[in-house]
Amino acid sequence: SLVAKPVFVHARKRIRWRLVTSWPKSLDVLFGAPQKIAELVHQMTDGLFDIRVYAAGEIVPGLKVLDAVQEGSVPIGHTALYYYTGKHQAFAFACGVPFGLTYRAQNVWLDKSKGGRLLEKLLADFNVVGFPAGNTGAQMGGWFKKPIRSVDDLKGLRFRIPGLGGKVMARLGVSVQLLAGGDIYPALERGAIDGTEWIGPYDDEKLGFYKVAKYYHYPGWWEPSATLHLIVNRKAYESLPKEYQEILKTAAKVANQQMMEEYDAKNPPALKRLLQKGVKLVKFSDEIMTRAQKEAFSLYEELAAKDALYRDIFEDWKNFRGEIAKWFGTAELAINQFLYGR
Amino acid sequence: SLVAKPVFVHARKRIRWRLVTSWPKSLDVLFGAPQKIAELVHQMTDGLFDIRVYAAGEIVPGLKVLDAVQEGSVPIGHTALYYYTGKHQAFAFACGVPFGLTYRAQNVWLDKSKGGRLLEKLLADFNVVGFPAGNTGAQMGGWFKKPIRSVDDLKGLRFRIPGLGGKVMARLGVSVQLLAGGDIYPALERGAIDGTEWIGPYDDEKLGFYKVAKYYHYPGWWEPSATLHLIVNRKAYESLPKEYQEILKTAAKVANQQMMEEYDAKNPPALKRLLQKGVKLVKFSDEIMTRAQKEAFSLYEELAAKDALYRDIFEDWKNFRGEIAKWFGTAELAINQFLYGR
Repeated sequence: SLVAKPVFVHARKRIRWRLVTSWPKSLDVLFGAPQKIAELVHQMTDGLFDIRVYAAGEIVPGLKVLDAVQEGSVPIGHTALYYYTGKHQAFAFACGVPFGLTYRAQNVWLDKSKGGRLLEKLLADFNVVGFPAGNTGAQMGGWFKKPIRSVDDLKGLRFRIPGLGGKVMARLGVSVQLLAGGDIYPALERGAIDGTEWIGPYDDEKLGFYKVAKYYHYPGWWEPSATLHLIVNRKAYESLPKEYQEILKTAAKVANQQMMEEYDAKNPPALKRLLQKGVKLVKFSDEIMTRAQKEAFSLYEELAAKDALYRDIFEDWKNFRGEIAKWFGTAELAINQFLYGR
Repeated sequence: SLVAKPVFVHARKRIRWRLVTSWPKSLDVLFGAPQKIAELVHQMTDGLFDIRVYAAGEIVPGLKVLDAVQEGSVPIGHTALYYYTGKHQAFAFACGVPFGLTYRAQNVWLDKSKGGRLLEKLLADFNVVGFPAGNTGAQMGGWFKKPIRSVDDLKGLRFRIPGLGGKVMARLGVSVQLLAGGDIYPALERGAIDGTEWIGPYDDEKLGFYKVAKYYHYPGWWEPSATLHLIVNRKAYESLPKEYQEILKTAAKVANQQMMEEYDAKNPPALKRLLQKGVKLVKFSDEIMTRAQKEAFSLYEELAAKDALYRDIFEDWKNFRGEIAKWFGTAELAINQFLYGR
């Protein structure tokens, strides 16, 4: 036949973006999430949409990622939204709060709830679009020089813990310390603090806390999971072809699962190595957990009384948390207890 | 300037594929996973790569998806690989086995282990490339007319359960029944069987088992999680532009998380409705679980003794399962017990 075959030719945009993060490269699983996103976007656009990933401090400080993306000085960033509770307290729910949602519950809530939509509106007020793009899972409860058995044991203890976890610890009588990552080990070594929390076995091992504080507590009830977000300047996002928007969203969702996988692959051997080095595991008692949960919820109620948006998000979150607990308390909990509880 | 700006024009292939599945449309969460994949691929290729999804039986029978994709009569399918243990027993590990891996552990093992690579080689022997693309999470233990408290209570009971779960139940003295989805309710109603398992609250509710067998047991220890796979004919996959291959892989990975989210969103209200209708929850006793686990592992050992590839996959899986259990038994289990265990 002489009829020409149709040729589908699309002129596609070449785009180069710089992506800023809140992570040093040494936190390779956290930093690996935006790298994964960049890699996927590159592969899915035949290299036309090119994203280069920068560590904290390379372009903007780690805790200024939202500011930079909001202003548009960079189009895109990867961060933990609870760093920005100074801008709005409700950002805490986007990431994780004490006695909050576990990984799977958090994914559902952010994706499908009224609270998730309200958080998107809050982000829109800051001129950004956000997508969950990573999770640490349940964190560990941190390193102490002595085993902590009761709320009494916590009183007066100098413990390094930021954020809402720190606020709850303060209500339990802890002398809460705020120290950046690199300052923790020296402070612990010379006895300026009695303990510290960080993330989990894989990241904690690298900072060497086990050498000077061998009682490793669990769970980190202040972070039953912690979602990291990919945030994009709204104008920059809207300037993308629809196809690239979908590719970016999809890559973020893959990164959300991929980071969980990375931690679940790297934490088990790290925990094993730590135990071989003489680390002792200590489970926080029900007394501590119950008291801490009570203080956490009284804190949320206080914040809800001051701000209508916070209250709306908190009420939706609290209701969701109660409903999903009944389901996660049956098949999933029972098989986990049987397989992992002995 | 008179210098022309570069225009990036790529001739891209228009592709139309038919995707066959093992699911009736009524199992909307299962059927929704390949639909989600088709939607994402469409969006990420500006409609150029078009996949149309067919229910079980529309083109090929639900249990012949691997056969059809292997032969290339259709290029792509969505199925559960444990339907094909008749072709090779090791396919069971790709999906889920009694006392096997929970959702997060299963994701890591398939993605990062030697066993995962061996399963990929096994799929290659069947001329297909496979990607995890959906999960049910921990299933429920099914519906009985009386509460089952002990192994003795199981003896002689006519219980509908397929696959390895059925083999283990048979070893516990159950009279194992095999019935297709639509035949189960009538059999249960007229007393031809004493009980049945299915999936979880959302899917089970639709089949109405609660009307004739109100004791709802948990956990479904025969499926601590169940991975569904996207499988692609190798030649068809290799004929795709690299960019479309990445888009397809990425869409599968999103579907893997998305299906878990759908179930985690739909199961809690379904369980609540069932309880309001008078359903009674019964937890399988440690005696039953321990005996069943012992039988399951003796079954795996028997199969391993007969086939070298099965043995290699099983040994890797068993080792992984043991290692990850220590980690999932600390922070994750402790916070889950506290949040969901009361």
